[in-house]
Amino acid sequence: MESITMIGSPKNAHETFLPNGTNGIKEDKTTVGILGSGDFAKSLTIRLIRCGYHVVIGSREPKCAADFFPHVVDVTHHEDAILKASIIFVAIHREHYSSLWDLKHLLAGKILVDVSNNMRVDQYPESNAEYLSSLFPDCYVVKGFNVVSAWALQLGPKDASSQVYICSNNVQARHHVIELARQMNFIPIDMGTLSSSREIENLPLRLFTPWKGPVVIAISLATFFFIYSFVRDIIHPYFKNQQSDFYKIPIEIVNKTLPVVAITLLSLVYLAGLLAAAHQLYYGTKYRRFPPWLENWLQCRKQLGLLSFFFAVVHVVYSMCLPMRRSERYSYLNAAYQQVHGNVGNSWNEEEVWRVEMYISFGIMSLGLLSLLAVTSIPSVNSALNWREFSFIQSTLGYVALLISTFHVLIYGWKRAFEEEYYRFYTPPNFVLALILPTIVILGKIVLLCPCVNKKLRRIKRGWEKSHFKENSSGAAAHVSPERVTVM
Amino acid sequence: MESITMIGSPKNAHETFLPNGTNGIKEDKTTVGILGSGDFAKSLTIRLIRCGYHVVIGSREPKCAADFFPHVVDVTHHEDAILKASIIFVAIHREHYSSLWDLKHLLAGKILVDVSNNMRVDQYPESNAEYLSSLFPDCYVVKGFNVVSAWALQLGPKDASSQVYICSNNVQARHHVIELARQMNFIPIDMGTLSSSREIENLPLRLFTPWKGPVVIAISLATFFFIYSFVRDIIHPYFKNQQSDFYKIPIEIVNKTLPVVAITLLSLVYLAGLLAAAHQLYYGTKYRRFPPWLENWLQCRKQLGLLSFFFAVVHVVYSMCLPMRRSERYSYLNAAYQQVHGNVGNSWNEEEVWRVEMYISFGIMSLGLLSLLAVTSIPSVNSALNWREFSFIQSTLGYVALLISTFHVLIYGWKRAFEEEYYRFYTPPNFVLALILPTIVILGKIVLLCPCVNKKLRRIKRGWEKSHFKENSSGAAAHVSPERVTVM
Amino acid sequence: MESITMIGSPKNAHETFLPNGTNGIKEDKTTVGILGSGDFAKSLTIRLIRCGYHVVIGSREPKCAADFFPHVVDVTHHEDAILKASIIFVAIHREHYSSLWDLKHLLAGKILVDVSNNMRVDQYPESNAEYLSSLFPDCYVVKGFNVVSAWALQLGPKDASSQVYICSNNVQARHHVIELARQMNFIPIDMGTLSSSREIENLPLRLFTPWKGPVVIAISLATFFFIYSFVRDIIHPYFKNQQSDFYKIPIEIVNKTLPVVAITLLSLVYLAGLLAAAHQLYYGTKYRRFPPWLENWLQCRKQLGLLSFFFAVVHVVYSMCLPMRRSERYSYLNAAYQQVHGNVGNSWNEEEVWRVEMYISFGIMSLGLLSLLAVTSIPSVNSALNWREFSFIQSTLGYVALLISTFHVLIYGWKRAFEEEYYRFYTPPNFVLALILPTIVILGKIVLLCPCVNKKLRRIKRGWEKSHFKENSSGAAAHVSPERVTVM
Repeated sequence: MESITMIGSPKNAHETFLPNGTNGIKEDKTTVGILGSGDFAKSLTIRLIRCGYHVVIGSREPKCAADFFPHVVDVTHHEDAILKASIIFVAIHREHYSSLWDLKHLLAGKILVDVSNNMRVDQYPESNAEYLSSLFPDCYVVKGFNVVSAWALQLGPKDASSQVYICSNNVQARHHVIELARQMNFIPIDMGTLSSSREIENLPLRLFTPWKGPVVIAISLATFFFIYSFVRDIIHPYFKNQQSDFYKIPIEIVNKTLPVVAITLLSLVYLAGLLAAAHQLYYGTKYRRFPPWLENWLQCRKQLGLLSFFFAVVHVVYSMCLPMRRSERYSYLNAAYQQVHGNVGNSWNEEEVWRVEMYISFGIMSLGLLSLLAVTSIPSVNSALNWREFSFIQSTLGYVALLISTFHVLIYGWKRAFEEEYYRFYTPPNFVLALILPTIVILGKIVLLCPCVNKKLRRIKRGWEKSHFKENSSGAAAHVSPERVTVM
Repeated sequence: MESITMIGSPKNAHETFLPNGTNGIKEDKTTVGILGSGDFAKSLTIRLIRCGYHVVIGSREPKCAADFFPHVVDVTHHEDAILKASIIFVAIHREHYSSLWDLKHLLAGKILVDVSNNMRVDQYPESNAEYLSSLFPDCYVVKGFNVVSAWALQLGPKDASSQVYICSNNVQARHHVIELARQMNFIPIDMGTLSSSREIENLPLRLFTPWKGPVVIAISLATFFFIYSFVRDIIHPYFKNQQSDFYKIPIEIVNKTLPVVAITLLSLVYLAGLLAAAHQLYYGTKYRRFPPWLENWLQCRKQLGLLSFFFAVVHVVYSMCLPMRRSERYSYLNAAYQQVHGNVGNSWNEEEVWRVEMYISFGIMSLGLLSLLAVTSIPSVNSALNWREFSFIQSTLGYVALLISTFHVLIYGWKRAFEEEYYRFYTPPNFVLALILPTIVILGKIVLLCPCVNKKLRRIKRGWEKSHFKENSSGAAAHVSPERVTVM
Repeated sequence: MESITMIGSPKNAHETFLPNGTNGIKEDKTTVGILGSGDFAKSLTIRLIRCGYHVVIGSREPKCAADFFPHVVDVTHHEDAILKASIIFVAIHREHYSSLWDLKHLLAGKILVDVSNNMRVDQYPESNAEYLSSLFPDCYVVKGFNVVSAWALQLGPKDASSQVYICSNNVQARHHVIELARQMNFIPIDMGTLSSSREIENLPLRLFTPWKGPVVIAISLATFFFIYSFVRDIIHPYFKNQQSDFYKIPIEIVNKTLPVVAITLLSLVYLAGLLAAAHQLYYGTKYRRFPPWLENWLQCRKQLGLLSFFFAVVHVVYSMCLPMRRSERYSYLNAAYQQVHGNVGNSWNEEEVWRVEMYISFGIMSLGLLSLLAVTSIPSVNSALNWREFSFIQSTLGYVALLISTFHVLIYGWKRAFEEEYYRFYTPPNFVLALILPTIVILGKIVLLCPCVNKKLRRIKRGWEKSHFKENSSGAAAHVSPERVTVM
């Protein structure tokens, strides 16, 4: 109590003349203590100063450390720093926590903010914050700020604003630190009791967790279709006709793989939504949980969609590089030679011309639509859309993009799907495989759009249940499509 | 009054030991009540908990509903929930508002937050919030949070932070809810009295409102120029020479339409600014309102510019796909055949070579500049620029892009604008039409840049008025170009 | 003091019935005064009202000005406005500050917020805020909000949220305005005493300051390599063989310049990190400051990287336009003619085919990786990544992109680097120059990855020092790679 009063004392002679009818900013003046004088301590200091706090650094060698900090900072001994502040950041290694043991009596009643991270997930049997709490049971230990890098702290709020996860067994201490985080221009998230600290300490060690599944799927699909095309288009002609087409590997085979992966990933995005709708129709309620695999699938649709866009764009770039190749040039020249020698005045093939003009045209259209989907995935663009706009882009435009891509593949294939020569080694051509999933998804969507099915699904989404009609007065239904699942 | 005191009671034995010299976080501990147990209620609960609130759910069947909510939530009967909280979210349908009639005596003096939405714009004669207020005149009804989807609430603040519009007839109640919204990491917007609730309820039902005008203009232009090119390039040679060029429709005709639409839309962006400047020059003041059509036009310049960029990019993709077409291959082969048969050793045409190299080059340059303009339209990039930087990119670079695109078209057209054979059906070729608006805009800009005109315009923008010189001490002029209109 | 109490008075009869156990929102109701009635005053008013404030405008001609403001605003005389508010925005020109001299007695004890800007950097000997403070020594002058444009204020918080820099000699006044800025949905930055006001006033006048160095470097490199290619590929054949290849200037020469600049800029990004690591290894500590040139270089790596990406993309677009050119068509046709006349049935050159397929393939791959790097530079995408993810993309993927681009150039060069005919004027071909920096960087990185060097560097980055072992308990090391320098 008295420590806070003390630090709130006037720094400036003017202040007594100020109107102070407004309260709520008194805590802004709070002095914050930091134990430790490393990079993180320094960056934390800079952010705290910029947000209007006074900072006291507790260092083992205050004279050396003072040069390292801005001159407005009070760099002093651990004991002194602890006395001057009621909220103290512990910016030292877990292995040195015990070095604070002698200061136990001074730390009692203080809020200790554990900002430490580990090198590996679940490195110690207990989290660092729980360990600190067990060492100093008379302190209010709060875990937080560990997800922020020293660099982001220094850079200032705008360029690297981010969420800060905070937990503590003491509600008031937690709220003090939450308010502090808010004043430091972070977005604080209350994670409850200190038992969440393990989870919070593992957060900065994750590496693209939501991307892992979709990337594995994309790479598996790409590998499979690459080998499939390689066998069909390189190995088969080599063994059959001794024709050496190995030069096709870097571009042509890759460019046969990419579009199949792209359209398959796009279909997977919408297949998840279809299965969710089927689940709801089957059980006649939206309140029954989806099986875990479907839940996970639904949650990684954004990643699947962006990967699909990435593969589609790379496919476009590969396709546009085709005419630049030397092989294309030689093929032209040889064809011209043949035409002259065969004395063919006009080699025009109207059907071929139409097929190519059409599938290129459909390809560009679906690329255009997919670009719109991708742009609205940028967080700051996304958050500027309301729910109807988001669902229009992601669901309606997305289905149109899938439909047009399917036409792109269909016209590319043309009649070749029905010609025997394209079934080398008794395997169907790539474009036939590419059509399987999109066709299933489009047919499934058509079924869902049937008036009878659609009506039932809408009722379910408004809260109706097959078994009983209770609780349909709940707020959910008052919202237009409040669930993402219901839309895509 | 007593309800707040009650809920502020200690949850934790530690708390009495805590320094509480700082205030301002007491309200963090406030219990918030929610009536209803649907999806929106659940999502709201999750967000409230993550932001440090305690939540009491009032449900008609608390035992069933309890499974649906996190275990830290107090799921109870309506009566109990109302007693425990002073701010109560009404997350039930408008048609069930009257079911709360029996609890009227308990609700008196509470803040009721109406979060409901409708299915259609202006569905009921009065807004839901006004209806709730008329049912419970002793409550402080606040409208808000309806623009947030259940999904965005659950996702957490970062991924879907957004503005929340709040209105109420009671100032204090409104401020309580504004503060609550801020603590929930939303950006609250004070919309004044409850009469704004109709507008707020219509907000989530809008669908790309600011885009409608520009999209209609773009589609109209595209349709007109598509038909125009179709008639000139397909119908005319068909009737005149029986030449069947219908294969040109999907790519060549589309690719003649896109660039004209792109450059026309880009010109429209800057034409609006020119007309605004002319208006200011004519009336000799910047304080006279623009006519509504000009006001609307000025406000949709960003959308027009982005559509222009979209059309330009699609034009580039179409152009780069031209050499991939089968028709191009046949045309090459036939030309080679003709050359050999005609025994022409060298078909090189230096003028044609230069024309094509130059217009491709200008095209790529203007695409590069337009990309920079488009990137700075991403909200998070945009907000990292200061006013001078923004106006440099949008105005200076924008005009340079328009100038270069105009050269692109001019060089593409070359001398053909003056050859009679290009005026089929007595209509000018596409590229002549494409030049009309850009030429007007560039000439207009040159006039505005004349020293005499420019000086007068600058004075007007600094607050000078033809009629009188009063009030030119106002803050506006103290800012460098504070008005967007003045720059673009 | 009394002014605040006065303005906090009830506006609404309901309010006395409201629970007011929660405090902290009382200041929301504070009336804010604005002197001046120009555009900035109007926009400020709109933002303040939307954030729940009551606004009093002090104007010299209140009757005229009233039409200009929303009707809820109290437009009155200067004297009246000053009496009604304790925080007063001074939205008038610096040259009219002295016109407030007569109101000195009324202004005493008020917080005056100076929002003015100048036309030029360091226009006056003292900053506007310091001048205002010298005129009214009894006021608490606070500088702030000058970085926000009138347009951004009106647009609302979401579309143009930004940082607001605030300074004042009076700590309490500064905190009041910081809190006000926060309530207005800005991100306030405490800049300390009024001596910072000069710096703050110069901020809106800067024009892409962090971009200047990198852009100068990029333009210099582009100019040099353009002239270099021009001399070698146009001038040399012209003088040697009277061969006129001037048509190559707009596309081919530009397209030889762009990739060299792109790969050189990308190398510069990673060279800075290598030099920083070498500096740390040499001095055996990370606590020794880098020389200023290296510090600046390290800080503009993001800009260098984005410029590299921009040049790479433009290079790709130029390359993909190559087959569209008329010169390409003529070259084909003439080659076909030659082939027929030479009676060469098959002109296929397997080595050339492989070279082109391979370098195009590597080019597309490095473009794909650079796109990922560029996308994660969008602020809102960037802030969604944690430190490990950011460093994985920027460092690991970045080095892979550099490696693949180097292969792209190597394969493009093929054996030609060793053929004398490519050394015209005794100068090495472009692609040899392009390889110098990337090779140095890749070799440097390999040295740093050697176990012995890598181990020492890791120790240094964990806080170890060659001279002494003190203070290695500091928090820095507790973080996984908290310094950006250590990663890239």
